[in-house]
Amino acid sequence: MRATIMFGAGDVRIDDVPDAGLVEPTDAVVRVTRACICGSDLWPYATLEPTDTGLRVGHEAVGVVEAVGADVRNVKVGDVVVMPFAYSDGTCDFCRDGLHTSCMHGGFFGSGDVDGAQAEALRTPHADGTLFVLPVGEDDALMPSLLTLSDVMGTGHHAALAASVAPGTTAAIVGDGAVGLCAVIAARRLGAEQIIILGRHADRIALAREFGATDVVSERGDEAVERVRELTGGLGAHSVLECVGLEQSMATAIGIARPGGAVGRVGVPQGETMPASQPAFFANVTVSGGPAPVRAYIEELLPDVLEGRIEPGRVFDRTVPLDGVPDGYRAMADREAIKVMVRP
Amino acid sequence: MRATIMFGAGDVRIDDVPDAGLVEPTDAVVRVTRACICGSDLWPYATLEPTDTGLRVGHEAVGVVEAVGADVRNVKVGDVVVMPFAYSDGTCDFCRDGLHTSCMHGGFFGSGDVDGAQAEALRTPHADGTLFVLPVGEDDALMPSLLTLSDVMGTGHHAALAASVAPGTTAAIVGDGAVGLCAVIAARRLGAEQIIILGRHADRIALAREFGATDVVSERGDEAVERVRELTGGLGAHSVLECVGLEQSMATAIGIARPGGAVGRVGVPQGETMPASQPAFFANVTVSGGPAPVRAYIEELLPDVLEGRIEPGRVFDRTVPLDGVPDGYRAMADREAIKVMVRP
Repeated sequence: MRATIMFGAGDVRIDDVPDAGLVEPTDAVVRVTRACICGSDLWPYATLEPTDTGLRVGHEAVGVVEAVGADVRNVKVGDVVVMPFAYSDGTCDFCRDGLHTSCMHGGFFGSGDVDGAQAEALRTPHADGTLFVLPVGEDDALMPSLLTLSDVMGTGHHAALAASVAPGTTAAIVGDGAVGLCAVIAARRLGAEQIIILGRHADRIALAREFGATDVVSERGDEAVERVRELTGGLGAHSVLECVGLEQSMATAIGIARPGGAVGRVGVPQGETMPASQPAFFANVTVSGGPAPVRAYIEELLPDVLEGRIEPGRVFDRTVPLDGVPDGYRAMADREAIKVMVRP
Repeated sequence: MRATIMFGAGDVRIDDVPDAGLVEPTDAVVRVTRACICGSDLWPYATLEPTDTGLRVGHEAVGVVEAVGADVRNVKVGDVVVMPFAYSDGTCDFCRDGLHTSCMHGGFFGSGDVDGAQAEALRTPHADGTLFVLPVGEDDALMPSLLTLSDVMGTGHHAALAASVAPGTTAAIVGDGAVGLCAVIAARRLGAEQIIILGRHADRIALAREFGATDVVSERGDEAVERVRELTGGLGAHSVLECVGLEQSMATAIGIARPGGAVGRVGVPQGETMPASQPAFFANVTVSGGPAPVRAYIEELLPDVLEGRIEPGRVFDRTVPLDGVPDGYRAMADREAIKVMVRP
């Protein structure tokens, strides 16, 4: 079969690899019908040291179950499934708490000995805990939005929960990538009244407005902080959804939070330390968030997708076959595409 | 009148100063019957650059109202009052939210043009919002515990709330100073089942045990993290109450938190950045807290003090007259005393 392998910064190739197969009795093999490229894939795309073996990248997919191990009970061959970016057993203390991304027996697709999803097929550990069976056919028209339940929509929702978005409040979203756009959807869905997006790409901002953003701040740094304060009567935003992960964006997020407010961060932090520790402290700003337990959120978000109340699939503005994945990375890195869908 | 002035690191003096008086019509003048020395006073005591004018230090007091301005309504001459470490108008957006330490017209005693409480008397801005009238006489036997409502007990309570302490959970307290000890009281009061204190001073640990600590960890750094993990079945503590403020203690706090758990920090952060940003992120550990809005908590905590259910006043293990304040600083800095009460 064929799969995407990243051999270094800017070096993504589609190669022949051994067919995906069952290893553990709790595994399933999923034929990938839709995958995509994530903003977080762009970090190694920018910085990965050259490697001979390469990384089997990709962690978001919808697909059809092709084989299941002897111990798999909840998933059967032929099921159309969402594959969240983290695999999880669904039974440990953390999964029972709804924190599947800290599963004691879990991990992330595209790391360790678990391959990536930008491929024709892949092995899914802990199939019963990981996969969510969809009540639709594999070519359903809603497939782009259903695909976002594997990561970006659930991640935007996590940011909103971590930032304690509540009806009538002001939410500010830092970052206009696909996660930021889904965070706009999530903030609106949870009732935020004023939704400010910080970003400067015209196409993304236009979509953010359609998703419910009420204000746009294109400034950065101190100017952005000042502008958000102006827009919020000098007080700052109750909830800030940090969807970038840079120190500068985190400093901005803390700077625009209202005293007593919260920053929900889902952008993978690129720095070892968090900036603005003292300003956050003196304003009693809570910093929360992390890798989103999207598996826990599918059940809640799915009805809204199926009934068309939210359309997160609109973040995909380009679709490529597997051979087009390298150019898809380039297009996203060049900000030519918001998010690229892959149809292997 | 006489007041405490800090002229530099290690240089605390009792000097004659002009009598405290009304300046604004919303002011009160409070004759201080009890004040104390705070762990946070030890930071300038260790590091303050020499200054000719000096700092009028102290921010915790109980006293008797001696004069009120023309606009003061809720407080009258002769009232016995608690004076929280921050003054606040009680009416702004943040005060109405219960976040009096972010009051739009507020500030902290012992900073700017508002003098400190280690003195015979002091001016209290926004007396109606700031002062809490006690239903006891000025020499009530409960006075030490009532005095802690001006800071340390409310601060420990804030740490517990910020760390989301709830019935049946595990709480870990980093730091065995007076705030850490009050945090033990607060954690127990909110129902924590296992209460682990990290500290190494025998007298403080003994008191922590009396206050409800179930386990003691005297290791530091990685060894402390390992020990807490052992005590919590490998999972970490649901709630960590950070009562120190050093980068190392914060890194430990994050390290011992359970994935999905929370660190409530009330130790004033001495570093500009927060350590362990990535570990906190990947474990979805929330970091919350800041200066405690103790004014908001007095009403809740007072009945427990009056009825003897909590005895935070036991953190005072030394009492000095005003002249004894310099030696009180020395004793606390040398860890000879846990917390020093001042009777001007």
